[in-house]
Amino acid sequence: MRLRRKAGTKLALQQMDELVVLQPKEWRGRWHERFGNRHPIHVELGMGKGRFINEMSVRHPEWNFIGIDRYDELLRRASEKVVESQSELELFKESHNKPNNLILVLGNIETIEEMFARGEIERIYLNFSDPWPKTRHAERRLTHRNFVTKYIELLNSRGEIHFKTDSRSLFEFSLNTFAEMGLMMRNISLDLHGNGLTPNHVMTEYEAKFHEQGMPIYRVEVIVGDEALMR
Amino acid sequence: MRLRRKAGTKLALQQMDELVVLQPKEWRGRWHERFGNRHPIHVELGMGKGRFINEMSVRHPEWNFIGIDRYDELLRRASEKVVESQSELELFKESHNKPNNLILVLGNIETIEEMFARGEIERIYLNFSDPWPKTRHAERRLTHRNFVTKYIELLNSRGEIHFKTDSRSLFEFSLNTFAEMGLMMRNISLDLHGNGLTPNHVMTEYEAKFHEQGMPIYRVEVIVGDEALMR
Repeated sequence: MRLRRKAGTKLALQQMDELVVLQPKEWRGRWHERFGNRHPIHVELGMGKGRFINEMSVRHPEWNFIGIDRYDELLRRASEKVVESQSELELFKESHNKPNNLILVLGNIETIEEMFARGEIERIYLNFSDPWPKTRHAERRLTHRNFVTKYIELLNSRGEIHFKTDSRSLFEFSLNTFAEMGLMMRNISLDLHGNGLTPNHVMTEYEAKFHEQGMPIYRVEVIVGDEALMR
Repeated sequence: MRLRRKAGTKLALQQMDELVVLQPKEWRGRWHERFGNRHPIHVELGMGKGRFINEMSVRHPEWNFIGIDRYDELLRRASEKVVESQSELELFKESHNKPNNLILVLGNIETIEEMFARGEIERIYLNFSDPWPKTRHAERRLTHRNFVTKYIELLNSRGEIHFKTDSRSLFEFSLNTFAEMGLMMRNISLDLHGNGLTPNHVMTEYEAKFHEQGMPIYRVEVIVGDEALMR
C-alpha cells in the first residue's frame, strides 16, 4: 500500500511509546513482560490501517495483540485510530481497570524471528496479504513455505495461523503449501460470507469493501502446535 | 441426471457382457481375474455418459478402468460410446494386441463395499458428483465422511482419490472432510483451467461445458494409502 508520507511521522510515533514499538527486537522473548501479564499473544502480520487488530483487542481483553507493519505511515494511521477508539472506550476501560492489550510494531516480517522467541506467540493472523501474483515473486508471499517454517518456530503448543484473503490464486497457493507441509487445516471457507456474516466476525478494511462488492472471501485455520499431532 | 428410458435397455446391456457388468458383486475380490492381468484398477464413481473413463482407458492401457453408474440408461449410452470409439481404434488395438481395460458397471455407490474387496482399487475418480446442496442431504454427498471411510478401506497402499467439481460449496465441504479426517491433499486447484488447459487432461462432458462458459473447476488429489504416512 502506498501512502503519502506526512512530515513528522517518526516523531509522532515516538511520542506514543505506550502503544507503538519502533525497535521490536529489543523485546524479543520479553513481550509478556511488556504486556504485564501472561495472556496468549496474537500477532497480525501486515495490519494495514489496523481496523482488525484494534477491534480484536477490544473484543478480547483476555488476549494480547501485536500488529506489525513495515510502513511507518500505516503505523501512524493505525495508532491514531486506536487512540481515537480507546478514548471513546475510556469509561469502559477504567471501570474494568484493564491493562492495555495492544501494541503496534514497526517491523519487517522477513526477519520476524528477530522480533519473537521460540514459542512466544499463540496465534498469527494473515489478512489480505499481498498476493504477489508473479511466479518469480512467490517467495515474497507470506504463506510461502519459508515464512510458514518461521511461524511454526515462533508459535507455541496451541499455535494456530488464521488466514483470509480475497485472492483465489493466493489461497490456492497457500492451501497447497499447508498441505505439502503436512499441516492440519480446519474451517476452510471458499466464500466466508456466502451464508450471511458470521456473528462476532471482525472484518478488515479490505474485507468490508470486498464484501460489499459481493466478492468471495477465502479463509482457513491452520493448526501447527503439538495439539495437531494429538488429533 | 434424468433420461428418457429407451425400451430394451436391459437387454441391450446384457448383450454387451464383455464390456458391461450388471451384477458387480459377483466379481468382488476377482476383478483382476476379469481383466486378465494385475494392472492397477481405477474406478470412476458416477461416470455419467462415460466420456472421461472411456478416454482415460484409451490413453492409459497400463491401467484397468471400471466406470460405475446406477442408471442403466446412462450405462447404455456410455457403452454405446465405448463401442463406437473402440471400433475406430480397432486397427490400433489389434496391432498392439491389447486386452480390453475398461468395464462399465451398474451399481449403487452406497454399497460399494459389496462390489470391491479391501485394497482391490488403486484410484477413485469423483467427477462432478451431485452437490446435494441442502444440509439435510449432506450424507448423500460422495465426499461425505461415511463414503470416504469406505473408499479408504477399498484402496490399496498407493491409493488416491481424484476429485473435481464445479460446485464451490461441494468443494469446500470436501476439503473440510479430507482435512478433518487427517488425509493428505495434493495439487489443490481453485481454477483448474485458469492458466490454460493442463496437457493430457481428460475432461468430462460437464467439464467441457463449464470450461466453455468460463466457470472455474475445482480439483484436489487425496493420498490415502500407506505412502501418505511415509511422507
